Amino acid sequence: MTPHPRVGRDHILDIAETLFTEHGYKSASIREIAHDCGVTNAAIYYHFPNKESLFMEVMQRHAERLHDQMTLAGANIDSPRERIVAILTTYVDTIAGQHAPIFMLRRNMKHLKAPGSHRGLLMKSISQPLIEAIKLAQQSGQIKKKPNPEEAAALLLGMLHGLQHHAAGGEGKNISQNDAQMAVDLFWDGIKK
Amino acid sequence: MTPHPRVGRDHILDIAETLFTEHGYKSASIREIAHDCGVTNAAIYYHFPNKESLFMEVMQRHAERLHDQMTLAGANIDSPRERIVAILTTYVDTIAGQHAPIFMLRRNMKHLKAPGSHRGLLMKSISQPLIEAIKLAQQSGQIKKKPNPEEAAALLLGMLHGLQHHAAGGEGKNISQNDAQMAVDLFWDGIKK
Repeated sequence: MTPHPRVGRDHILDIAETLFTEHGYKSASIREIAHDCGVTNAAIYYHFPNKESLFMEVMQRHAERLHDQMTLAGANIDSPRERIVAILTTYVDTIAGQHAPIFMLRRNMKHLKAPGSHRGLLMKSISQPLIEAIKLAQQSGQIKKKPNPEEAAALLLGMLHGLQHHAAGGEGKNISQNDAQMAVDLFWDGIKK
Repeated sequence: MTPHPRVGRDHILDIAETLFTEHGYKSASIREIAHDCGVTNAAIYYHFPNKESLFMEVMQRHAERLHDQMTLAGANIDSPRERIVAILTTYVDTIAGQHAPIFMLRRNMKHLKAPGSHRGLLMKSISQPLIEAIKLAQQSGQIKKKPNPEEAAALLLGMLHGLQHHAAGGEGKNISQNDAQMAVDLFWDGIKK
């Protein structure tokens, strides 16, 4: 006999994501999440040992989705440069908007016990498709091998966040796909052979 | 007759900065700040109408210091490229370390009523010396006029934050002056004429 067969992990994660995003990690409680799922606290604890593990899984699910979308965007594009543009454009579509859930949630990671390592893992998962594309570009001999792929990815993602910050600080604009192109142009011309 | 002649604005700002940095904006109270200054609440309110204005002045003072340090670092350097390196190196020295007060404090800005515009003003003040140096480089004809100086500054600062993020996610390392050089090299070669 399985307890609580009617409430699946995914449904709990959906509800938890909404509450964490709206109220923040600290304010959202297991009781509230259970209430909104229409089940008892025990039904939640059946799937997740505590609030922290539930939150981490919400984050992980997000990072995986973004990872998959970025991978898909770059697939079947032969030109390494265009592949990097496509991957970053997908990234821009996700981070455009200060209220993108992944950033709303990430801001709450400071409440967790080991935020540094968690954040590192999430960033790794999100950067991976970009790192692979940069490796390919380096192997093709079109760009230099320094900075290394991980640093190059950090530089590119940083440029987009810098532009996002700049746009948001100004007239509340958001970054656009043109910004992804601008970052890649600068990057490419900066390290092409 | 001036009330509370013995407690100056600067002393209050010093104490407030320590408490905001250690406990966060929300937890630090005027009562606590007054206590640590050895004065009554009224002595604080004599200088600052409320906690928000006190916090904003702490932030503003920080931004101005960083602005002045960056300006000084770039002064008397004739080469536009080297001037940009010197300014960014000063910036790196300040942001190295996750616990740099300016970032600790900035994280608390979400509690303020108009965080977007405040943040924009602070970033503008911090970016200004860099923007001026980029303008000079563009006027000298050594680099292209696109991206514009504001965007170029956002790209450069973004690269450094990206590297910082990358370093912190890894083995808890910090970015170094080499990273400032790496960002400028990439940037310069990316848009040189």
